Formats: sequence, structure tokens, C-alpha cells
Amino acid sequence: MTHMASAGGDTSADNVGSKGGETVAPSPYRLTDAPGPLDRDELTSVDAWWRAANYLAVGQIYLMSNPLLREPLAAEHIKPRLLGHFGTVPGLNLVWVHANRAIRQRGLNVAFVAGPGHGGPGPNACAWLEGTYSELYSHIPRDGAGMGALFAQFSFPGGVPSHCAPETPGSFHEGGELGYSLLHAYGAALDNPDLTVFCVVGDGEAETGPLAASWHANKFLNPARDGAVLPVLALNEYKIANPTILARIPEEELVSLLRGYGYDPLIVAGSDPAAVHQEMATAVDTCMERIGQIQRAARGGTDGERPSWPMIVLRTPKGWTCPPKVDGDQVEGTYRAHQVPLPAARTDDTHRQVLEQWLRSYRPEELFDGAGRPVSELVDLVPDGDRRMSANPVANGGMLVRDLRLPDWRDYGVPVDAPGAGQHEATRVLGAWLRDVTAANPDNFLTFAPDELASNRLQDILEVTGRDWQAEIGTYDTKLDRTGRVIEVLSEHMCQGLLEGYLLTGRHGVFTCYEAFIHIIDAMFNQHAKWLDASAQVPWRRPIASLNYLLSSHVWRQDHNGFTHQDPGFLDVVLNKKPEIVRVYLPPDANTLLSVYDHCLRSKHYVNVVVAGKQPQPDWLSVSDAAVHCARGAGIWDWAGHNDTLGSTPDVVLACAGDVPTLETLAAAAILRDRMRDLRIRVLNVVDLMRLLPEQDHPHGLPDREFDTLFTRDRPVIFAFHGYPWLIHRLTYKRTNHAEIHVRGYKEKGTTTTPFDMVMLNDMDRYHLVIDVIDRVPGLREKAAGLRQEMVDARWNARTWTREHGEDIPVVANWRWPDPSR
Amino acid sequence: MTHMASAGGDTSADNVGSKGGETVAPSPYRLTDAPGPLDRDELTSVDAWWRAANYLAVGQIYLMSNPLLREPLAAEHIKPRLLGHFGTVPGLNLVWVHANRAIRQRGLNVAFVAGPGHGGPGPNACAWLEGTYSELYSHIPRDGAGMGALFAQFSFPGGVPSHCAPETPGSFHEGGELGYSLLHAYGAALDNPDLTVFCVVGDGEAETGPLAASWHANKFLNPARDGAVLPVLALNEYKIANPTILARIPEEELVSLLRGYGYDPLIVAGSDPAAVHQEMATAVDTCMERIGQIQRAARGGTDGERPSWPMIVLRTPKGWTCPPKVDGDQVEGTYRAHQVPLPAARTDDTHRQVLEQWLRSYRPEELFDGAGRPVSELVDLVPDGDRRMSANPVANGGMLVRDLRLPDWRDYGVPVDAPGAGQHEATRVLGAWLRDVTAANPDNFLTFAPDELASNRLQDILEVTGRDWQAEIGTYDTKLDRTGRVIEVLSEHMCQGLLEGYLLTGRHGVFTCYEAFIHIIDAMFNQHAKWLDASAQVPWRRPIASLNYLLSSHVWRQDHNGFTHQDPGFLDVVLNKKPEIVRVYLPPDANTLLSVYDHCLRSKHYVNVVVAGKQPQPDWLSVSDAAVHCARGAGIWDWAGHNDTLGSTPDVVLACAGDVPTLETLAAAAILRDRMRDLRIRVLNVVDLMRLLPEQDHPHGLPDREFDTLFTRDRPVIFAFHGYPWLIHRLTYKRTNHAEIHVRGYKEKGTTTTPFDMVMLNDMDRYHLVIDVIDRVPGLREKAAGLRQEMVDARWNARTWTREHGEDIPVVANWRWPDPSR
Repeated sequence: MTHMASAGGDTSADNVGSKGGETVAPSPYRLTDAPGPLDRDELTSVDAWWRAANYLAVGQIYLMSNPLLREPLAAEHIKPRLLGHFGTVPGLNLVWVHANRAIRQRGLNVAFVAGPGHGGPGPNACAWLEGTYSELYSHIPRDGAGMGALFAQFSFPGGVPSHCAPETPGSFHEGGELGYSLLHAYGAALDNPDLTVFCVVGDGEAETGPLAASWHANKFLNPARDGAVLPVLALNEYKIANPTILARIPEEELVSLLRGYGYDPLIVAGSDPAAVHQEMATAVDTCMERIGQIQRAARGGTDGERPSWPMIVLRTPKGWTCPPKVDGDQVEGTYRAHQVPLPAARTDDTHRQVLEQWLRSYRPEELFDGAGRPVSELVDLVPDGDRRMSANPVANGGMLVRDLRLPDWRDYGVPVDAPGAGQHEATRVLGAWLRDVTAANPDNFLTFAPDELASNRLQDILEVTGRDWQAEIGTYDTKLDRTGRVIEVLSEHMCQGLLEGYLLTGRHGVFTCYEAFIHIIDAMFNQHAKWLDASAQVPWRRPIASLNYLLSSHVWRQDHNGFTHQDPGFLDVVLNKKPEIVRVYLPPDANTLLSVYDHCLRSKHYVNVVVAGKQPQPDWLSVSDAAVHCARGAGIWDWAGHNDTLGSTPDVVLACAGDVPTLETLAAAAILRDRMRDLRIRVLNVVDLMRLLPEQDHPHGLPDREFDTLFTRDRPVIFAFHGYPWLIHRLTYKRTNHAEIHVRGYKEKGTTTTPFDMVMLNDMDRYHLVIDVIDRVPGLREKAAGLRQEMVDARWNARTWTREHGEDIPVVANWRWPDPSR
Repeated sequence: MTHMASAGGDTSADNVGSKGGETVAPSPYRLTDAPGPLDRDELTSVDAWWRAANYLAVGQIYLMSNPLLREPLAAEHIKPRLLGHFGTVPGLNLVWVHANRAIRQRGLNVAFVAGPGHGGPGPNACAWLEGTYSELYSHIPRDGAGMGALFAQFSFPGGVPSHCAPETPGSFHEGGELGYSLLHAYGAALDNPDLTVFCVVGDGEAETGPLAASWHANKFLNPARDGAVLPVLALNEYKIANPTILARIPEEELVSLLRGYGYDPLIVAGSDPAAVHQEMATAVDTCMERIGQIQRAARGGTDGERPSWPMIVLRTPKGWTCPPKVDGDQVEGTYRAHQVPLPAARTDDTHRQVLEQWLRSYRPEELFDGAGRPVSELVDLVPDGDRRMSANPVANGGMLVRDLRLPDWRDYGVPVDAPGAGQHEATRVLGAWLRDVTAANPDNFLTFAPDELASNRLQDILEVTGRDWQAEIGTYDTKLDRTGRVIEVLSEHMCQGLLEGYLLTGRHGVFTCYEAFIHIIDAMFNQHAKWLDASAQVPWRRPIASLNYLLSSHVWRQDHNGFTHQDPGFLDVVLNKKPEIVRVYLPPDANTLLSVYDHCLRSKHYVNVVVAGKQPQPDWLSVSDAAVHCARGAGIWDWAGHNDTLGSTPDVVLACAGDVPTLETLAAAAILRDRMRDLRIRVLNVVDLMRLLPEQDHPHGLPDREFDTLFTRDRPVIFAFHGYPWLIHRLTYKRTNHAEIHVRGYKEKGTTTTPFDMVMLNDMDRYHLVIDVIDRVPGLREKAAGLRQEMVDARWNARTWTREHGEDIPVVANWRWPDPSR
């Protein structure tokens, strides 16, 4: 998606030769007298910054040493592998310096999002010019030595990536996988009324689905409550090897599109730096004034119409200011400038000479003093302290994160006089608690859902707030609110991206989704988990709030919606990420869900995946038992087992993880208790899936000795699991008793049917679990042949009933745990 | 994403009571005298179809019996679980009948795509009216008994899903997960010049990222070469619980948006059936004429400008014609009509009475004869044979699929005089073959890439074709072509969706992508795999061409792009799907890649995932050896092993899967051969990952005996694997020797570095593999302590070199397999 192609990206520069043909250095740089709001001094200094940042970017891409060109450029000064993309850099630097002008003139609080891929050299350069780089990295001072270190570390082993990343000062957005810049910007702006996010969107990125949808995020931005986003569409016309769609439609069509998205675009276009500076200054001034007007009007208390937010379309040449021709091919202003314009700079003398001319065309001698420090003209452009975009605290959200006010979850628990006596919809119980979490944290907690909040039974939240909605409100629309604390949009990408932006800038939230469709954001989850992992290794980054999923309408209760709605595989994706980052919880009932979620909302810097049902299910554990069980993460339910006395080894372990597997396991245990009174049965429930991993593989992993105590060293374990069965094997293959762990789970045997038929299709039903016990416990197959046949018959009866009646057989539908006290 | 919520969706109807409040049946139905192109007879018959289809839809949702209301509606006639969504159905049926009118009047070839979720009752109804249902399902004749069966099977155990699915006649699009309707429609239209696809896009679906991007698919539709897509935006204003964004922006803004996407929208709006019929007829007539003009102009040979394609915005009430009020709440025209308007029809007398009035409001007695057959007025509206949308062969692509003309891959192989003597970029070698595949199949083979074709080194294809591009072409744009056979757009969603549509309608193709970013379409892959699985069980469906991925720029060569670009986890997602459907290949070199890909392009109804490098890698196998090795899928490389004589058991097995793991394994073997001459070493390469699975778990699975022969029963296996290491354990945990299989793979230890450093970070480098051998083979740790320390030092040296020089240490970079013959 974002690319380093053959030329500069992933071949050694030593292998790349000049192809011959003319290679032309940039013309001597002249600042024309273009008219506009900038007087000559301001124009000159703005342009000086731009040249300095461009110089520093080219230096990062090419140079290992000789940063200030104090000696003629030689092969050994050039990196052996040339990485990073120059094409987008001049545009990024242009936006940066004009944002700085606005910050200083207007005292703004601005954050910067660099959408274009591999554009890292630009923000790195600006952060170094602003001094932030040196404040955060002692080995990179703001002088010649620091400049050398800045250059050398870029895209170099042990250094920093070629795109904006956790290492980049001022960035809360990773430029690796494209599509999420605008969502992160909007997420940052929510509940940040003083913040303006300048968000540069590449025209390549604009082709992605998530980005195409995310322009509509303005339907959720309340100008009174929230900050502003200024999208800058960087229309440099090219991707790695192709023009972009938005650059190859008539401008009228592009403007129509952006107006349709609800923006009022201003177009800045050209290739003469002075003229573009003047146009850009005008555009930024206009945008800032319009944003101010919008915010003042909204904050004056009038519930006005949704504003048409300003934005900028910046049409400048790809690789602007780079060598126009290389080896006979036009480069500046074409896709050939996307990456590294002079790929053979290390080996080809002409390329190297042109590179030197290119670097010198920025007139570094005017920009850096004898010690390599930026001259005062540049330093004067730097905003104060935290007002520097490279130092804005919102980009290091962990600095700002406040603990949530959490009502005591125990007060929301359901009473459980005896296990299984009552039934509740777990997510609805959680919803009452989340309602009060929402009310108690009115400016730093949001819930996101793709039109599934009520379907997932969290509608109690709507007792204290509406759904955020800035668009029109129709006669019959309900629960919409300009200040709503729930954001619902039928795009998992938007929910995920907005929440990420919100979390990355120091707030809290929950994303509730149908389990099957969370796969839509697999890639976004991956990238966020990588961000958490990488940022934990950056000394100046602070932990942010965890990303909390609540997956409901899960695989076992999507019988009616059918095969397309059945997929528990997100867990497999999640468990591929760094163990330090990911947590998976499968609470079996309402009280355990409350306990788990309380833990999740208190945690930092994780991705917590919680899967919980929305259908009525038995309440197994009281509040206090739930607290203990969840703290352990996995434990024996002695009240459900049979003859499982302390110190003895059971004949069989019935393990379960997930609410439906727990129900079926308990039902199987009840049959076995009733019919095989001599059998020693252990019932074991796993809430925290990571407990299954070896302790050296995950912080939550059970030590082998404890695992062996729970699962025995040699007895058959029949494990009813919520997800794909092999996941349990992947987690437990190192355990002593692994050969005796037999897992039942989902195996893509889906269809449109009833809940119990669905479980039967996957052989995870109570009757089959009994069969599994009979088949696995030595000697039982003959001894319990009658019971086994009964189980086979019971399955057949249940299937037949379902096909006739369209619902589950009453003996299953009405089953209750046979508590002796009832 | 698509939902069945509490009311009708996933609670038993027996549990749902009326909430009280007024419940109002639809008013008696009157067909007004609205002016327009339909004369009274035509208006009446078009409306009769619409009423009939709506009646049949309501019947499917509610009725288990009494389909023709020959007796008063009783509780036992009502299904216990009420599923399917009525809200979108009247719109779908309206589009269908007006498409039929166009088909008959103009002799068109039209396919239908129903985007809105759970709208299955509509197309099911129309297919039954058209007789197709009865032709394909003998138990559902086109009479009263068949109507009863049609109703009873809907969303019933053993029946059909609530959305369009493989079971739906005329559908090549599944309505489960939302977002892909327009992509499927465009994919179908490519290379189908006579086809027009009516694609109904729900305004809920329109909020998704993939759909938001896919409007731009018109930039790839050539009016001369391809068919047409007529998008119909079904603007019924509501999702499950919320209004839609597109319905809550001013119409002017919506029109601006659609124009910006390159369409010329016609708006049909209203709630009076006659008036809407007239408007819709006008709109469809206009659209068909405009499409005809566009196509005639293009086919006249003028390379004109990209046309502004017509489309329709259909703004009609949600649940149009349903009871306006239920339990005191407005239902028709609101989100409450999204699903099942009368949720308590089985238990609540009022609801049931209103349901009966609602059904009777369609006047079924006029629509169906005494035997329950559609009256001739309806049958006369049915197009002939294959012209029925429900019978269009493109929707059963396996009927149309032609074998590809495949040049002999052996002719494209690289010469291999001795293993490892030469080096090639595997994907570039494949590219030459794909070039000729492209040329030999000029109308049924396409390659899709998210701006990564050249980056993945398949640019040879561009020797015989350009990239398909219907937008403007700039001065410096190259290799763009109105008739190009490569589609590049920076949206993995669009690539995947267009290819799916192309395959589902009977053609062939390849999707090449960076490995890490293929996760972006995890969810789409899942849904396509489910379609393949489900459609294999539908007797009248024929196998389609496989979906072929070529994943390059893979994890081990994304050292320079860094952590964000490193993710081999798509394999884990793929392996969760039905074994019958999925295949994963990891060819170690150029010739094996050719052999594997030839196999993939010949295969049917699979998803083939091929991961192959684009960097120069040693050529290990000659063409003939590659053919044999790939046919086996896994085998011993005796030339690489040592003392591994027939019948003997080696001391250690060095297994590998993937090109970089193979290289490291061979390099480790070379060290061991040289330094531990007594050691018996087996080198084992796995191309077809499914060979590792037990034979009962996958058609390609190795029988245990063969597996044991290869992997031994008890010797240490050091397995260097391309992906996450636990995937090998998940595949092999049932094998005899599993406890001795030690896997090295990717463990999220990524950073920006060099290729070899990346391998070292994950302990999969040659030196560490030697250490693993020393540590695992009994007795070696002491015997080879010196070599072990050398290996530790070599790692340190390599790391240090890399940090200093920015590239790999020469002893590694220049390493070649030490073939004795050289």
C-alpha cells in the first residue's frame, strides 16, 4: 500500500546504476515577488523554513555524513540504501510552515497529521528545526552534529522509520498503512474544543475505502464541543507508479465531490514557491477565520446548521524542487519523484553531482550558521513551547490521560442466589454500568458502534446521552443529539479510526461491534497494536488508555443471521501481536463481564478484546465470586464438578471458555453428574484466554505447575471453546497434558438455523460433550454405551424438532442448571 | 454491520409481547392516476408485480403455512422466530420490476445486485414469480404449495438465509457483510459489453469505507469494452436504529457528492406508488437511453472523454406499504420498519390481525389464481429464459467459465545448472509468464494491484497491455490504456471486490498485494471463502475460477519499510476457513513459483494464497525438479542434506517453508556440513503448507506415515517458517513428532533495519539455526561448544556491521550455496 519500489526502496544503492540520459539539477532558486498577504520579510522567512526543511529531508534520505556539505559530496557520504519518499515532502513542509504562521499569529493550538506514506523526512526536519527533536533525543542536538545524527539515523538500522511513527515528535499517527489520517484527526478533535488538527491527506491515500468514508466524519464534529479539523488534500497527482484518481478528474468534479462531503474547498495550486506561499497564506488565513466564525457562532449557544467546514486542496508538483530530469526521464512533477529521485547517487558521479547541486539549491549556508544551527530567522518562526506542533501534548496522549471515574461495578451486578438460578443478558447489564461511566466522564469517554449499540443491548447508555449527530434530524429520528456521547456510523473503519484518534490523544473509549464483522478492521487493529508496541519502546512516550472492544452478537448466536455472520477469528488475529499488548477475555455471564470490563477500563496501553453475549444466559457467579474468578482468569468451578475433591485427580476435565461453551459444558456436566455418579468430573472455566499461554510467552500465562494442577497431567480434557478450536492448541501445545486436550469449537459449519442446532453442527453441544467424555475416558465407552446412545438420539431429536418447529427443542431451550437447593 | 436486532431478529416471537398503543393496518391500496410513460395497463401490471413481490416477501418473513390466506390467520401459521428485513424490500422489488420492464422493452441483458442487508425476501419473491425458483428447486413449484414451501424455508433451519446468498437464483452477491455490492457489480461488468448490472446500494451500506471508495470504479469501466452499471441508491433513510448520513444531508449536497464521484444522478422520490412507478419508469428509460448513447459513441471508435454515467437515487419510505403504526409508534418510513414491523404477530392478536390486513392490502386474490399460481398478467411481465435476472447465467459464473490458455510455464523457467548457482527475482520471472497469460486471454483474465504491480516486479505484463484507465491522462503518465488488462487503484478493497465480481461471473484473475496489507481485506476474503463453501453445496451452482493472491514484498523483505509493513498473519486468517476451499503455497524460488502459479490458474473454486519474494534469491530447483517438488508439496532436498541416506534416520531435520527461511536453512546446512561432518542432516522444504495438516483435516494433508517418514518420529526438527511460528504448531500438533518440532518464524520483532538483521531479530538466521541444532541434538552442546560460540560471535558481528554500514555484512550478502561442482 505504501511503497518502496525498486529504484530507491529496496535495492542496495550499490546495485543501481545510472541508465544514461540527461540528468538535470534544479534551476537556481529564485523567490519571485508574488502578491499576497505575506510581506517580503515574511515571505522570505516562510520560504527559508521551507527550504531548510526540504534540505533536511533530502539530507535524511541520502546522507550518512557531511550534512552541511562542508566538503564536496563523495560516495562515502551517501547511504548504501536510499529510503524514504521525497515526493510528498515539499507539500508536507509547506503545510507545516504555514500552520506555524497561523499558530504564531493567532495563538492557536494545532496538531499535525501527515497522511502521505513514507513522508517522515518532512516532519522529522520540522521537529528538528523546532528544537523538539533535540529535547527528546539527547544524541540529536540542534547543531551540525545533531543534523548529522538526524540524517544518519533515518531509515537506518537502529534508527527511525521512513514514515511518521511513534518515534516522531508531534505525531500521533503512523504513516505506514494508508487510509486513517483523517479519522485520527477527527478522533483527536473530539472533545478538544481548543484544538485544530491540520491533516494532510495524500491523494493516493484518498483512494482507500477508509479514507473515502472518513470525509463524512464532519457529521459528528460539534463546533461547540469539539475542535476543528483542517483537511489539506495534497494533490501531487501521483502514487508510486500511477496518477491518482482525484488528480485525473476535472477540478470541477473534485470540488463537487468535496462539497458533497460537506466541505468548502479552497484551492492552492502552482509551482512557483512565492506564488504558492502567498496563495497558501491566504487560504490558511481564510480557513482559520472561517473556523473561528463557525466556532464562535456555535459556542454562542445557537444550535445552528451543520457548518460547511473549510479545507484546502494543495496542487503542487510531486517532488517539487527536486531534479527535473534524471537519466533522460522527467522526474519532478511525475511519479518518478515519488521516492528517491537520484537512485544512483552513491555510485554514479553525475547523480551525485546533481544531488549536491540539488542540496545546494536550497542555499544551506543561509539557513544554518557556522555550527550548523538554524539561523535566527528560522528560530523566530518556531511557536512557543507546547504550541510547537512537534511538541503538542495531544500527540503524546499518555501525558494527558486522566483516570476514568468508574462507578463500583459491584453495584451493577445481578444477584445470584445459586448458580444458574437466574438469567440475564450480559451486555445489557454492562450497559447500565457503561451508562453511568458515560455520565461520570462527560468529556473523555466515548462509545463507538457501527449502528449496533442497541442491537448489542447497550441502549441504556442512551438514557443519559444521545447519539452524536450534526447532520439534519428527521421527524422520526430518535436519540440523536448534538452533544451525544455515542458515535454510530455504519463503518467499522470509522468507528475504529475515530476511537484510535481519541485514545492516541489521551482519552478513553469502547468500540462495540458484531464479532464477525470486526474482521473488517483487522488491519487497523494490527497497526494500532504495532503502534502500542513500538511506542512502549520510545522513552518519552507515555502509556495511553487501552483500546477496548466489546464483541457481541457473537458466532454462537448468529444462527439466524447465518454463515456470513459467523466468524470468531478475530481472536486469532489478535493473538499474533505482541503478548505485552493484547488481552482476550471471554466472560461466561453478566457479573464476570462487569468485572472484566471494569478491569479493561482501568488498564493502559493494551488492546482488550472482550467477547460477550447479548442473549439471556444463566448467571453463574455472584459478584464476589465473579471478582475472584476474573482475578484468577481461570479456575475450577467446584460447585459444578463432581467428586472433584481437593488433592484428588478427576477422571475428566470439562473446560470451557465463552458463554455458550460454558452453558453447554454445564449442561453436559449435569447429565454426567446425574447419570455417572462415580465419575470424577472437574469443571474448569477460562475467562482470560492468555492464562493458557506459558508464563514465559505472556505476562498472564499460568506457570506450568499451576496449569498442570488445573488441567491435570494426564486426564482427558474436553475443552468447549468459543472460537476456532485450533487456537486452544496453539496456546497450549507446550503444556504437559496437551496430547489429552480435545477441543470443540467453531469449524465453519454454519448455516441459518437455531442456536442449539448451530452448536450441534459444530459438535460442541452438551450431548456431544458427553459423548466426548465417554469416548475419551478409558473404559467408559463400554460401560456407558447406553448413555452414549441416548446422547446420539437426543441430538437427532433436537435436530428433527428444529427442522419442524423452527426453534429449539424445549428440553434444551428451557434447561436450567439443576441446583439441589432449588 | 447488518443486523437483526431485538425486536424481530433474534428473540423468539413467543417472547415478544405487544407494548400496547395503537397498531394500524395499511390503508386500502389505491393506484392513483399519476402521469408518466406508463399507460394505465402497464402501470397496473407493473404495480401488480410489485404488490405480488411485496406480498411474497411479507409471507416469507411471517408465514409457516396458510400462504394464500385461504383461512383466517392464526398463531400457528406464524413462524416462531421472525427474521429477514422488510424495510428495504419494497425498494428492491420496485427496482426489479422496472428493470424487467426495461429488459423486455429493450431486449437487455441485465444482472441484479441487491446490496441492502437481509433483503433476501425481495429477490426470492421475484425469482419465484419468474419461475426460476421452481426450475432450480423442485420442492418449490410456482403454485400454492410452492409458495408455502418458499415461505416456510425462509430463514428457517435447513432453509435459506435472510439475505441474498448462493442459494438465491440470479445472485452473485451475498448480502451478509455490507460494502461490496458496487464492486461486485463493476467486476461483473468488466469484459461483459452486453451486460447491464442494476446495483441497488443501500444508504446504510453507503457509509462503509469500501462502498464509499467504490463509486470511483467508473474510472475503470470502458464503455466500449465493458458493460454498464446502473447504481440505484436506495435512500430509505434508515439503518437499524439510526438515520443514514446520505439521507440527512441536503439533497443538493448529495447530488454534488454523486456528481463528484462521476455520476449524473436522477432522483426518484415519493410514497405514492403510482407516482413513483411513473417517475421510476421515466428514470430507467432515461438511464437506459443514456447508457446506450454512451456505449454507441464509445463503440463507434471515438476515444471520447470519460462519460458521466447515469444513476438513480430512489428516495422512498422505509418499509413502504407496511403498517404505519405499531404499538403507538410510527413504523412505516422510520427505522422501526427496518426489520420486522409486527414482532408479536404470533402471540398478539392485534398484531396478527394487522398482519393479515397488511397481507390482504396487496390483494393477493388478484395476483394468484386458485392454485396459487401467479396470474397471467404477472407472468407476462417475465422476460424470456436467460433474460430473467433470476436466471442470468452470469450469476452462476461456473456455467460460463472457460479454461485459460496457459503458455507452458516450463518455457519461462530459469536454467539451474546446480542448486544456488544463479539468482533471480521470483516474481519478475513469474511476470513474464503472466504477461503471456494476459496476452493469450485478452477478454477473461485481469490482474489487480493496489499501485503495487511494478513494485512487486510484475511489470513485464505492461509489455503487452497498459493499466486500465478511463480518467484523464496527464503528460507524464505512462502505461495507462483505455483497454488495459491491469487494474491498479490504491484500495485493496476495490482490487478484491472487483476481482470477486469478475470471478463470480465466470472469469479469471490475480490480485497481487504487499503481504502485510492484504489484512485490509481479511473480512472480504472471509466472505468470499464462505460463498465458495456455501455455493459448493448448492446443486445448481458450478465451480468458479479460484481467487489467486500473489503476496510479495513480504515480511522478511520489509526490513527497510519497518514494523508497519511486516505481517505474515493473513495465512492464519486463511487457514481458519474450510479446508476444501483454501490453499497456501510458499514457493522457495522462481521455478517453483512458476509451477505453483500454473497450478493455481488451472484450479477451480479455491482461494490460492501464494507468497513469493521479489528480491534476487538463489535458484534452487530446475524446472523439472520444481515440477516434481511442487507436485509433492513437501520433500527432502537430498542434495542439501548430509549423510541423509535412504532408509536411515537423520540426526536432525532442517525444515523450511518460504524463500527467506529456505535461504537461511540452506546457509545453516552449509555451515553444519562443513563443520560437523559426522552429523546426519536432512533438509526438507515445504511448498504446500496444507501438506502439514493431517489427511483427515485437509485434502492435501500428508498421511501420518508419510509425515513421519519425512519429519522422523523422534528427531529434532528445526523449522524455519515464513509466518508466525505457532501456525506450524497449529498445523502439526497431531503429528507423532510434534514435541520435537521447533519453529523459528516472525514474532513481531520488527524495526527498520537490513534484511539479515531482520532475520536475526527473529532468531531465524543461519547462525541461530545452527545454534538451535546444537542445542537440540542430544550431545552436541558440549561437542560443538566452539562452533556455537562462533555462531554467537557471527551474529554479533553481523549486527554491528549493520549498525555501522547500514547494510548487511558481506559474508552474508554475498553468500552462495557452496556447490561442490563450482
